[in-house]
Amino acid sequence: MDTIKAYVQEHKERFINELIELLKIPSVSADTAYSQDVIDTSEAVKASLEKAGCDFVEICDTPGYPIVYGEKIIDPNLPTVLVYGHYDVQPPDPIELWTSPPFEPVIKKTEIHPEGAIFARGACDDKGQMYMHVKALEYMVQSNTLPCNVKFMIEGEEEVGSKSLGWFVERNQEKLKNDVILISDTGMISNQQPSITTGLRGLSYVEVEVTGPNRDLHSGLYGGAVANPINVLAKMIASLHDENNHITIPGFYDNVEELSLEERAEMAKAPFSLEKYKKALDLNDVYGEKGYVTNERNSIRPTLDVNGIWGGYTGEGAKTVIASKAFAKISMRLVPNQDWEHITELFTKHFTSIAPAGVTVKVNPHHGGQGYVTPIDSIGYKAANMAYTETFGVPAIPVRSGGSIPIVALFEKELKSKTILMGFGLDSDAIHSPNEHFGIFNYLKGIETIPLFYKYFVELSK
Amino acid sequence: MDTIKAYVQEHKERFINELIELLKIPSVSADTAYSQDVIDTSEAVKASLEKAGCDFVEICDTPGYPIVYGEKIIDPNLPTVLVYGHYDVQPPDPIELWTSPPFEPVIKKTEIHPEGAIFARGACDDKGQMYMHVKALEYMVQSNTLPCNVKFMIEGEEEVGSKSLGWFVERNQEKLKNDVILISDTGMISNQQPSITTGLRGLSYVEVEVTGPNRDLHSGLYGGAVANPINVLAKMIASLHDENNHITIPGFYDNVEELSLEERAEMAKAPFSLEKYKKALDLNDVYGEKGYVTNERNSIRPTLDVNGIWGGYTGEGAKTVIASKAFAKISMRLVPNQDWEHITELFTKHFTSIAPAGVTVKVNPHHGGQGYVTPIDSIGYKAANMAYTETFGVPAIPVRSGGSIPIVALFEKELKSKTILMGFGLDSDAIHSPNEHFGIFNYLKGIETIPLFYKYFVELSK
Repeated sequence: MDTIKAYVQEHKERFINELIELLKIPSVSADTAYSQDVIDTSEAVKASLEKAGCDFVEICDTPGYPIVYGEKIIDPNLPTVLVYGHYDVQPPDPIELWTSPPFEPVIKKTEIHPEGAIFARGACDDKGQMYMHVKALEYMVQSNTLPCNVKFMIEGEEEVGSKSLGWFVERNQEKLKNDVILISDTGMISNQQPSITTGLRGLSYVEVEVTGPNRDLHSGLYGGAVANPINVLAKMIASLHDENNHITIPGFYDNVEELSLEERAEMAKAPFSLEKYKKALDLNDVYGEKGYVTNERNSIRPTLDVNGIWGGYTGEGAKTVIASKAFAKISMRLVPNQDWEHITELFTKHFTSIAPAGVTVKVNPHHGGQGYVTPIDSIGYKAANMAYTETFGVPAIPVRSGGSIPIVALFEKELKSKTILMGFGLDSDAIHSPNEHFGIFNYLKGIETIPLFYKYFVELSK
Repeated sequence: MDTIKAYVQEHKERFINELIELLKIPSVSADTAYSQDVIDTSEAVKASLEKAGCDFVEICDTPGYPIVYGEKIIDPNLPTVLVYGHYDVQPPDPIELWTSPPFEPVIKKTEIHPEGAIFARGACDDKGQMYMHVKALEYMVQSNTLPCNVKFMIEGEEEVGSKSLGWFVERNQEKLKNDVILISDTGMISNQQPSITTGLRGLSYVEVEVTGPNRDLHSGLYGGAVANPINVLAKMIASLHDENNHITIPGFYDNVEELSLEERAEMAKAPFSLEKYKKALDLNDVYGEKGYVTNERNSIRPTLDVNGIWGGYTGEGAKTVIASKAFAKISMRLVPNQDWEHITELFTKHFTSIAPAGVTVKVNPHHGGQGYVTPIDSIGYKAANMAYTETFGVPAIPVRSGGSIPIVALFEKELKSKTILMGFGLDSDAIHSPNEHFGIFNYLKGIETIPLFYKYFVELSK
């Protein structure tokens, strides 16, 4: 397959420029101010799939943002690969920490990316990784090497919990029928060491609201005499972890699978330097659940994190006020067997039960998804590993990730097929953070590697 | 003194309209965006003092916002009253909770104010109460009844800690020389029951910053493995009170004066309905330090309240982020004998000492001031009580207030004179809150009562 290398070399400027155009559209699904941009992005994705060689592309309406569906069926008797990705992006906040505007992509060189990386919101998560699949299809169609059927399902609500995807998948099981689902929305260990994500954590995301007095009060006249919603919220949040950083919600750990010492020993073999990890984040120490090491804390263990908190006066200077309300956004990462809806119920019940007299508490569930573990003896996993081995020169390592792609469990349930998570991003790409970027090396390597997955998947399926 | 009643009746429309014009200028000292408005307000105050009959008025430059000084010296051998007030106002946030714009004053009737109240930021605190003194002077000059000398010192930084006032007072002791200081920046029990504030709490106001990783992180990939600054901040704040709502900072209570049971029994005689208090604030219960009742918790006991908190994603929808930083504004109300600078040091030392590994903590002191108790056997107190008794028909009750006017202790130290706090506002006036207002009754009653203070103070001084 030297031809794919040559094809990428010949067209790489265009590949980069096309992605940059896509990144300019601020498709922030969490904020309704961007709703037209999200719609515009779905149109751009549709056009790109048509140009790449799909025979049929449509924008499918849903109760939320549309899903772009495309397909190229070359022979109903051949296997079918379903590519999933998302065209929406995280909000860019805090925008003042970006060194260049989040929706004006620029290429900058970094220590890890000496060949340059594209800096923009969505560069890696997931526009860049999704677009690798579009360009891989273009190559296979142009070179007449597409060995099987391919379907694309690109959604616009992944960053807000894929609310409409379940609705869509349930209603389109025949259309979406496939032999394997291929997703690039994860990372790999390094540019020298590819890896395949075999486990994902589930997610329960809630927003809580604590209300004290019916209006903001002067802290001098009322301070000490009424419950201060911010102090109370802090106390309630603090009580959610005990002194060992275990989560205190009753029943929270009931279904958590405890890994054997052998399995944990196996995990510990993955290359990891605690010193480098701390240095990269400027931390004097790591922190987490007692009895587990860093790579376990962020993969096989469930967690509870406050993702945002606000209340009272947050402007310049001082205001001596007792706020009427305080708020927090809280997410729990879950491991396989923890049902996210059950966990959301447990959280809600517990959090409202610990509210002291003098305040009222509301819990609004945002969204969630189940955790997932994929076997490494499937044809799909083997094909992905062969593809990586060929382009990187070393086999991929299977890893459990702390992140969540809740729809993987949904696909297994509704479409009865396994998902292969071929990620090409790096942990340092700052997804969900200011200055998100995606290495040019990674982008082009992805385009090179994907056609090999198709080739080996079809060969192994025979 | 029927003539003052007649004068107020004749000119009340103009008195109200002049105050409304002053309230239209958004003199928010905490926010530099309003700095020109603050300056403009000092000019308006200068003009009003000249118009009222001061012989000499000047705008005095300071390291911060200017102080307006005015005087009318009728005879150096007569006593001198120094009137203090402030022309700056609190920020109007949260602005969406105002039923009319904070800087577009309107008169609305309320249950407590059947004659109407002026709704605007600063209506009561302190433009309205300060302006009563300007109009009282106007009356005394017009009617040729001013019985002594008067000086005005109106500052523009009270809501941000009166930073320049100490600087100014130290440098102008001769100019500010007086026999009594008169301030209307407090409240009274009700429109039927006047009261004089005899005690004020001190204040220490700080801003804290907790930093974890050097950038915002994806909570899936890092959640559970690094200290989350918001969770840590919540835990640190929660630990500042124990299960009895005592403050846990070592040394915090060392100098707190414990009142005798007799004194507490005396305090308990002030009219107070817990049911009405809870109902007015829509609370199912009050909350506070064990062993004390509501009217003690907010007056004779020191407190610690979070006035604002922020960190992470606070926009619409969900963002699965671990913030790099979390912040809070924290104020402590102090009782007499607690030195605010010492308490600020104790807080800083304690708060940084409880930071867990994995985060760094900064404490930035904002400002502070000492608590104060004034004796009720002074000539000034007696004169004020006689004035209230004449206009309200009942004597005033002495009360300890939970609020802070840190400059009262400063005046005693630098100018060696006692301060009389003749407040005409009500607790329900929503100062520092949305929909701040000041009753027309209270405004006009203040203008009527103040000249009587002058009269009796001069009589008692003979």
